Amino acid sequence: MKKNIFFLCISLLLCACNKGNNPSNSADQVQIQIEKETLAIVIHAGAGTILKENISDSMELAYKTVLEKSVRSGYEILENGGTSLDAVETSIRILEDSPLFNAGKGAVFTNAGTNELDASIMEGKTKNAGAVAGVTTVKNPITLARAVMEQSEHVMMARKGAETFAKEVGLTLVDPEYFYTESRMKALKRAQHRDSASKTSYYDPFAKDEKFGTVGCVALDKSGNIAAGTSTGGMTNKRWGRIGDSPIIGAGTYANNSTCGISATGWGEFFIRGVIAYDISAMMEYAGLSLQEAANKVIHEKLPEMGGDGGIIGIDQKGNIATVFNTSGMFRASIDKTGTLSIELYSEDQ
Amino acid sequence: MKKNIFFLCISLLLCACNKGNNPSNSADQVQIQIEKETLAIVIHAGAGTILKENISDSMELAYKTVLEKSVRSGYEILENGGTSLDAVETSIRILEDSPLFNAGKGAVFTNAGTNELDASIMEGKTKNAGAVAGVTTVKNPITLARAVMEQSEHVMMARKGAETFAKEVGLTLVDPEYFYTESRMKALKRAQHRDSASKTSYYDPFAKDEKFGTVGCVALDKSGNIAAGTSTGGMTNKRWGRIGDSPIIGAGTYANNSTCGISATGWGEFFIRGVIAYDISAMMEYAGLSLQEAANKVIHEKLPEMGGDGGIIGIDQKGNIATVFNTSGMFRASIDKTGTLSIELYSEDQ
Repeated sequence: MKKNIFFLCISLLLCACNKGNNPSNSADQVQIQIEKETLAIVIHAGAGTILKENISDSMELAYKTVLEKSVRSGYEILENGGTSLDAVETSIRILEDSPLFNAGKGAVFTNAGTNELDASIMEGKTKNAGAVAGVTTVKNPITLARAVMEQSEHVMMARKGAETFAKEVGLTLVDPEYFYTESRMKALKRAQHRDSASKTSYYDPFAKDEKFGTVGCVALDKSGNIAAGTSTGGMTNKRWGRIGDSPIIGAGTYANNSTCGISATGWGEFFIRGVIAYDISAMMEYAGLSLQEAANKVIHEKLPEMGGDGGIIGIDQKGNIATVFNTSGMFRASIDKTGTLSIELYSEDQ
Repeated sequence: MKKNIFFLCISLLLCACNKGNNPSNSADQVQIQIEKETLAIVIHAGAGTILKENISDSMELAYKTVLEKSVRSGYEILENGGTSLDAVETSIRILEDSPLFNAGKGAVFTNAGTNELDASIMEGKTKNAGAVAGVTTVKNPITLARAVMEQSEHVMMARKGAETFAKEVGLTLVDPEYFYTESRMKALKRAQHRDSASKTSYYDPFAKDEKFGTVGCVALDKSGNIAAGTSTGGMTNKRWGRIGDSPIIGAGTYANNSTCGISATGWGEFFIRGVIAYDISAMMEYAGLSLQEAANKVIHEKLPEMGGDGGIIGIDQKGNIATVFNTSGMFRASIDKTGTLSIELYSEDQ
């Protein structure tokens, strides 16, 4: 009862705040607001050949600690009545600031020995979006993607121009040296050694884990708004200003309050060609599939048919969470609509 | 009768050539090949405030002459048994080489007085795709997009890296000065004058024609393969490495033999957020709409609801053509499955 009264108060407050958008302030609306109290958040930190036998107990603990901190930080924002956008940005910043994952601080190296970061964010109410590609001096690319969405008329900016914008809006810039990590440099050297040894090494499944990796988050807030975001360092040893799916709206990230929010991770080229994130939303909208059904179809049928692999995380408008991948593992964590925390790394955790 | 015998011969030849892909070589297959003889091609060269009273007879003739040359050149390839990919690339190169349209030679200027070109191409059989963003020295960006698709493992490359790739695969490079045109420089100066005079000029509908513009082509070849491509100089006075929808697979370009091929033109930010090109395909695939119905819904309902404007051209697997826009005009031309040529500029031509 106490909880209900609390919800009623929050709802009345939300109605008052939203007056500009919703002129009618009837009892019906209060009811709707109460029903919209469902919260949910899910994060991923890359999919690939993630096998228990290859990860030590201490590394597993290290991964899980950051995943838990990320998902709990986002959830706390949602619990306090914050927006799904804030939750997504906060959770992703924590993953970006960790050297463990291929985004922000832990970004992989390009062929030229630089770190070029991509990110995108989208919110499901207005379907507004922001994305950046190939930035080298922005500490938190997800925050820049959000600034592109909220502080410019554009959706996507690239490289030096995006960095100029980051400076203009006052984001934290770092020396490119900030992104140097020993483990990623070793991975680059291994990849380059393989590439020089064999022309076909690109398709070597063993090599893929060093080439791919992404972090992402999807959240549903008390107002029923879904947001999704994705951030990555891209592919180890990448050349030619390659852009993957992470900064592509519809491929790596998508959000629509009437269907779902999606963040993807995997072999980016296939996610672009399959318009994977939006495809899941479209199947829900046009074919009446549930989030889980649509995600299964896309990740377990359509993507492998094309030759691609990877996974997605998603949340629908009712707070149902999906984590679907066709690789041996995906770093992932969630707090679902019942408040239950889950942190999983491997396929067998499913 | 003579025509039927010709088709039968061609079909038998195609069956023989395709043996590797289609092991069964039955009479059924001959029948299918005959049915696949349908050809169609459609091009656009931008949508916007295109009004008869603003275009002199001589300019109208100039526009129509290039549109006709472009669409006829692509169609000739299709008639001679060439691929839809060849037709799309050829038609777009002709539009890129003309100073009249905002792509290639006629590209608009950025805020910094440079020309930064974007393009993408996709083919509907394998759903393979290629895209480039922000290139400044590549004479025909559509050819570079095709090279990315066919000669790299990637889908998208940007800026200097894409230019390095262009050089490595031997494409024609030009001095950036090649893209200088007096009319586009005047447009930049007008846009910059307006921007300095008013902070809200970005949304000035009068200004939009100077800010947007794109060319594109969709074709269906004798083998039933659909290809689509798009090329643009982007937005006059653009800053911050802005990327629009033209190089985004799913937004500006999409092709799938089982549904349709689409090339879009308009206010790119809305086309990215709406995943416009793929949305039309998804409505056909999942909701059973025809190309025309899906395109009408997207361009006349969903896009204006978001606040966006522009148009699309498309061809479905049966060779039906759609040219749909919510602006006062769209430069467009087509040769349909009956062989009929059509060249139109204004809304009232529809």
